[in-house]
Formats: sequence, C-alpha cells, structure tokens
Amino acid sequence: MRLLTGKRTLIFFVIAAVYLFHGLVFASSGGEEAEAAEALEVLLSLIVILLGAKLGGDFFERFGQPAVLGELVMGMVIGNLHLLGFNGFEGFKNDVPLEMLAEIGVIILLFEVGLESTIKDMMKVGLTSFLVAVFGVIAPFLLGWWVSIFFMPEESIYVHAFIGATLTATSVGITARVLKDLGRSTTIEARIILGAAVIDDILGLVILAVVTGIIDAAAGSGSVSSLGILWIITKAILFIVGAIVIGSLVLPSYFKFGLRLKVKGVFLSFALLVCFGLAYLAGEVGLAPIVGAFAAGLILEEVHYRDFQHRGEHSIEELIAPIATFLVPIFFVRMG
Amino acid sequence: MRLLTGKRTLIFFVIAAVYLFHGLVFASSGGEEAEAAEALEVLLSLIVILLGAKLGGDFFERFGQPAVLGELVMGMVIGNLHLLGFNGFEGFKNDVPLEMLAEIGVIILLFEVGLESTIKDMMKVGLTSFLVAVFGVIAPFLLGWWVSIFFMPEESIYVHAFIGATLTATSVGITARVLKDLGRSTTIEARIILGAAVIDDILGLVILAVVTGIIDAAAGSGSVSSLGILWIITKAILFIVGAIVIGSLVLPSYFKFGLRLKVKGVFLSFALLVCFGLAYLAGEVGLAPIVGAFAAGLILEEVHYRDFQHRGEHSIEELIAPIATFLVPIFFVRMG
Repeated sequence: MRLLTGKRTLIFFVIAAVYLFHGLVFASSGGEEAEAAEALEVLLSLIVILLGAKLGGDFFERFGQPAVLGELVMGMVIGNLHLLGFNGFEGFKNDVPLEMLAEIGVIILLFEVGLESTIKDMMKVGLTSFLVAVFGVIAPFLLGWWVSIFFMPEESIYVHAFIGATLTATSVGITARVLKDLGRSTTIEARIILGAAVIDDILGLVILAVVTGIIDAAAGSGSVSSLGILWIITKAILFIVGAIVIGSLVLPSYFKFGLRLKVKGVFLSFALLVCFGLAYLAGEVGLAPIVGAFAAGLILEEVHYRDFQHRGEHSIEELIAPIATFLVPIFFVRMG
Repeated sequence: MRLLTGKRTLIFFVIAAVYLFHGLVFASSGGEEAEAAEALEVLLSLIVILLGAKLGGDFFERFGQPAVLGELVMGMVIGNLHLLGFNGFEGFKNDVPLEMLAEIGVIILLFEVGLESTIKDMMKVGLTSFLVAVFGVIAPFLLGWWVSIFFMPEESIYVHAFIGATLTATSVGITARVLKDLGRSTTIEARIILGAAVIDDILGLVILAVVTGIIDAAAGSGSVSSLGILWIITKAILFIVGAIVIGSLVLPSYFKFGLRLKVKGVFLSFALLVCFGLAYLAGEVGLAPIVGAFAAGLILEEVHYRDFQHRGEHSIEELIAPIATFLVPIFFVRMG
C-alpha cells in the first residue's frame, strides 16, 4: 500500500511537472521546448542573414553595384562556408520557416514595386513591355537552339527546343530589386522591364504547358493541347483584368469599412490583406504569387485610402518599407 | 539503334524538363513546387489571421476591452471552427512557419515595449517590481497549495507544492500587450508590472529547477541542487547586467559603424540585430528569448543613434511599428 501511494505520487509528479513545464515555457515564449530550440536557430539565422546582407550590400554599393548583388554573393558565401570546414550555418539553406519568411519577403518586394506604379502607367508601356517580353523569351530560346545544333547535331529537334526553353526563365524578383537598388524603379524603362517580367512569367507558364504536352505525347499518353495553352493564357488575362476591374470597384468601400474599425494598424493590415489576397488568388489560378502581389501594388492607389491619410497615418509606402527591410534580404541571401 | 536513340532522347527530355521546370518555378517564386503549395497555405492563414485579428480587436475595443482580447477570442474561434464542421483552417494551429512568425512577433512586441522605457526608469521601480513579482509568485502558489490540501488532504506535501507551482506562470506577452492596448505602457505602474513580469520569468526558471530537482531526487537519480538554483539566478543576473553594461559601452560605436554603411535600411537592420542578438543570447543562457528582446529595447536609447535621426531617418519606434502590426497578431491569434 505504501509503495502504491509512492507510485501514485510519482506519476502525479510527472504529470504535474509536464504541465508546469508546459505552462512556464508557453507563458514565457509561446511554444514547446523543441520549438524553443528551433526558434533559437531561426534567430541565429536571421542575425547572420541581416548582418551579412547589410555588409555585403555595402561592399557592392561602394563599387557602384546594386546592393542586391552583395546580398546574393553573401548568400553564396554563407551557404558554402562548410567548404572551409565551418558547419555552423549548414541547416539554414533548407530551413522551412526561413523559406516562408523569404517567400513573404519577395511578395512584399513586388507589392512595394507595384505601389510605385499605377495601372495607367503600366498601360502606357503595355505594348513595349509585351514586345520586350516576347523578345526576351525568343532571343535566348533561339540562341540555345543554335548552340545545341552546333554542339549536338546528331540529336533530334526536340532536344534543341528544350535547351532553348531552359534559357528563357527570368527572375522577376531580381529584376525588381536591381531597379529599386539603382533608384530607377519609377522610370519608364523600369516600368517596361517590370511589365515584361510579368508577361514573361505568363509566357513561361505557356512554354511549360507546351513542354509537358510534348513529353506526354512522346510518352504516348497525350498530345500537345492547344486548348490547355489557351486556358492558361485566358486564366492569366482574366486574373489581371479581374483584379483591376474588381479592385477599382471594391477598394474604396473596403477602405471605408476599415476606417470605421477602432483598432490600431488597420490601414497597414488592410493593405497587406489586398497584397496577400491577390498573391493567394494568383497562386490558385496557377500564376506565381508575386504576380498577384505586383497587381495588388498596381491597383492600390492613393484615392482609395485618402481618408486614412487625412487621419494623419503614414503613407502605405512608408509602412511597407520597414517590413521589406526586414524580410527582403532573407529572400536574396537564401537565393544566393 | 533507332530505339536506343529514341530512349536517349526521352531521358534527355525528362532531365531537360525537370531542369526547365525547376528554373521556371525558381525564377517565379523562389522554391520548389511542393513549397509553392505550402506557401499558398501560409498566405491563406495570414489572410485569415490578419482579418480575424482586426475584426475581433475592433469588436472588443467597442466594448472598452483591450484589442488583444479580441485577437485571443478570434484565435479560439478560428482554431475550433472544425467543431462546426468546417475544416479549412485545421492545419494552421500546428504550422511550423506560422509558429516562427508568431515567435518573431512576440519578440518584436517585447522589443517595442522595452523601447518605451529606459534603464533608469526601470531601476527606479526595481524594488517595487521585485516585490510585485515575489508576491505574484507566492500568492498563487499558496492559494494553489491550500486548495490542494482542501480537496486532496490524503496526498503528500509534494502534490500540494506542485499544484501551487503550476499556478505561478504568468504571460509576459499578454501583460505587455494589454498595457500597450490600453495606452498605458509608459506609466510607472506599467513599468512596475513589466519589471515584475521579467523577474517572474526568472523566478519561474528557479521554480522549474527546484521541481525537476525534486523529481530527480524522488526517482533516486539526483538531489535538489542548491548550486544549480544559484547558477540559474547568477546566469540571469549576469545576462541582464552584462547586456546593460556591454550595451552602453558598445552601442555608440556599433551605430557609428552602421552610419558608414552605404545601403538602405541599415538603421532598422542594426536595431533588429540588437533585438535578435540579445533574444538569442537569452535563449542560450536558458532564459526566455523575449526577456532578451525586452532588455534590447531597454538599452537602446536615443543617444546611441542620434546621428541616424540627424540624417532624417524615422525613429526606431516608427520603424518597428509596421513590423509589429504585421507579426504580433499572429502570436495572439495562434495563442487563442
């Protein structure tokens, strides 16, 4: 009997201790013990990334190069420190939480760049952007094709086409960031390039559809479906036109509703909701989320939220900038 | 021979397609296909959390309650929607990336609250804070003890002690946020409460050490080590005193160095580095990271970075606020 009581007490101890420990850790840092250790690792990565980004960026700015180049190079250095026998930062390249922070970072970046232009600005450069995009896809495609024919004349036409296709991918993120670093993101040239980058993204999807169609056909399980390609283009156009039309109809009353909420930070939260909302929708229709974020930046114009400004709030650009300062380098250091 | 060429071509196809696909996805969203799907899920969670936080906060503010209460209640509602047969948001409670965003959010919150006080302010209320903290630990401990004796008189003294101990945990995060919501975080009372909350955190660690010591002793594998308890207290005091002393010595030249970097966002990045750095160190010595973030806010004073202000940059509080607006609700909605 004595033993039993002793055991019961011990079990009670353990349960109470687990509960107590849970309570303490939860109260002090909002998670379990293992998560606390992971949180420390993420903190360390953030410290290394933020410091590396600023030092690398500074180094390249001194030589007249855009800061993003320094961040990319720093990312390469940090990611390859194990070659020098230092393994402290090995985990950080495959870290899921960091990946998400980077993802949100590039979404915020494209939103920021989109805010600097209006739909009208983009319409003006629309045709030029389209031509740049088409040329930006066709030129590397043909170059890749010819080089492939030159070095591997014995291969089939499909191989040459593939080599060409692999060269057509461009990075909207890097394009946008370089233009911003150079302080040129509001010029007409920048608008043409960014418009072209967005169109490129859609053309990329079309090429991908053609390529997978050819593979299916070669494997005998399908054919190149021109209907499928048409559907991708339709979805993309519907998304962008829909965002513009619905945006200009809904946004004024949306922000008027936000104006009536009696909590702090409504303006920024509501702007972020537009950004994340369109990024999510873009992802759902098969486009890249950053295309949605860029569209969100485009359709948000001052007239929609003038009343917040009258209330003395900061402009949306000023509110987004600190978030971008924090999150954008994470994307580029990880990408490097 | 013809077949072989066909096969070789097909293999080439697949490799090229994988590479092409990787290139396209990487260029457009910085990750792999599976990660892109996860990113969409995180985006959806962010949308739900941001919208829920603002609507819930508004509802409670209308009834004169702090907004954080609305965020906690919204979190409970969203987290339990499956009870109503709606399973769309099931994943979001256990989502690792969201967990990290929440973690960073509460670190930023304590940093923000710390920025509003100075070391001098805290020293003035030091003794009072200590008494409040001790009372805040002893009162619930004794209450729990007595209730335990009343309902379970047959259990041993250890059980009563445990019941008491489980009640001593307080949440620094919620305390800080409520004071901020009420617009009282700069009053003397707020300082006393926050100081007490930090001391509570250290007392919590001491209690935890005692408890695990007792369990080890009961299991026959150790004893309550008064040396171990002393070590925890020493570490905590060393950390806080060290942060203050080293901080005031190093910070001026640290920011002077930052001033010479030729990239944008150095000021905010350097302030965040202090915050994350001390949070990380706090975690390493066994304290909660938020204690480090609070200490970072305390030691950062305007005199350290006056030159940035002369250059026309926003104040550190203004730069941190948007990040807090974005990340802090994630912590409270998830906690609810």
